[in-house]
Amino acid sequence: MSENPTAAVLVIGNEILSGRTQDTNSRTIAGFLAPFGVILREIRVVGDFEDEIIAALNALRSRYSYVFTTGGIGPTHDDITADAVAKAFGVGIDCHPEALAALSARFANPADFNPMRQRMARIPDGASLIANPVSAAPGFQIGNVFVLAGVPSIMRAMLEDVAARLARGRVIVSVTVAAAVAEGAIAAGLAAIQATHASVAIGSYPVYRSDGYGVQLVARGFESAAVEHVVGELFALLKAAGGAPQRL
Amino acid sequence: MSENPTAAVLVIGNEILSGRTQDTNSRTIAGFLAPFGVILREIRVVGDFEDEIIAALNALRSRYSYVFTTGGIGPTHDDITADAVAKAFGVGIDCHPEALAALSARFANPADFNPMRQRMARIPDGASLIANPVSAAPGFQIGNVFVLAGVPSIMRAMLEDVAARLARGRVIVSVTVAAAVAEGAIAAGLAAIQATHASVAIGSYPVYRSDGYGVQLVARGFESAAVEHVVGELFALLKAAGGAPQRL
Repeated sequence: MSENPTAAVLVIGNEILSGRTQDTNSRTIAGFLAPFGVILREIRVVGDFEDEIIAALNALRSRYSYVFTTGGIGPTHDDITADAVAKAFGVGIDCHPEALAALSARFANPADFNPMRQRMARIPDGASLIANPVSAAPGFQIGNVFVLAGVPSIMRAMLEDVAARLARGRVIVSVTVAAAVAEGAIAAGLAAIQATHASVAIGSYPVYRSDGYGVQLVARGFESAAVEHVVGELFALLKAAGGAPQRL
Repeated sequence: MSENPTAAVLVIGNEILSGRTQDTNSRTIAGFLAPFGVILREIRVVGDFEDEIIAALNALRSRYSYVFTTGGIGPTHDDITADAVAKAFGVGIDCHPEALAALSARFANPADFNPMRQRMARIPDGASLIANPVSAAPGFQIGNVFVLAGVPSIMRAMLEDVAARLARGRVIVSVTVAAAVAEGAIAAGLAAIQATHASVAIGSYPVYRSDGYGVQLVARGFESAAVEHVVGELFALLKAAGGAPQRL
């Protein structure tokens, strides 16, 4: 997988760390990236503190092909992502004419486009805008970093404008097989299959259902034939353990 | 907040990064820690790669009072957390007699307690066990690191055995006020309130409902009186903007 583009997500917001809000954007981004062959390698969540945003962003952008940030680009005092990103890149930040125009068009009464709302047009120097078809306030791309909204519906809409900008890698083929077998009963067999098929990563996930134990086995790799070969061995293993495996 | 104990969560598992599984353990831990006055400062998610687990764990355990890891302590080949934690601490790892006994008791037929299941009794040297009342395979504490299961029901059960081990800090008082007001309309007023009340952190979260815009304002601080004072100002601000604020 080392030749594939890689990515990290940096979730910014006290509301995630306080437990108030369940982050779902990371999973959305993971699903979005899969068909591009971009491999999500890490997720970090930090609070609304400039130093922490800068440190995390610089650590991640130097390590992965892409970083996606979510959150902190609204109009209020606790929205500090754009400034933090500018500082992380060591560039200035100013009102972007195109962003200002897009936002301004949202307000029939010019007085409603107040200075705090105008803050949402502040974009780091050298960044390109990411369209926000939901609420106009744009995201932006600077270098390998995509700065997106935190509201899930807006974040999803912004990803549409990100798609064309991504390099592509080989897509991972993933097959899941489930059976009502305890994973401890097949663990040795699984390890043996994994040991002889290095190109396919096998994950084992126990399922606790009201009607008893089960397991879901996930085979992932670039070569469909190799994945299917492993899936055949997983079926045989689960059947030998008394299960009736099903492909999910 | 600098005198309060702090914490980080380290989620370990390819299934989170692939988008297959939604992490909910981080939010559970955040909610668990709040009444102890332990402040969750960071969450990281890494895959089932030993080097990445070690690097993330060492970064987090040196920075925060506590680290909670979730995932990777089952019986299968992809469960590598215990070994990675031992390496991060530079200690050995071996079968723990008490863990072995607890696990062994789960199997009426001794042959079912196979070597892979026995792997779950491997505990880093010097660690203390964390009870698992659901499926016996224990978690463990080593230094300031709590190693917990990934299955949410088991992870939650393990937290009960963690509670008594935590230092306590001042508990954060949090009040949420909601109104059908656009946050951009009150952003300047909010910033002014925040600027004069440094001991209370005000968060502003837009709400997109089918029936229109809204905002939820969260006031958080150690002093209940200070938080309530800010809440009073938030009510006044929202009413002045034409809203009918409600305390959630």
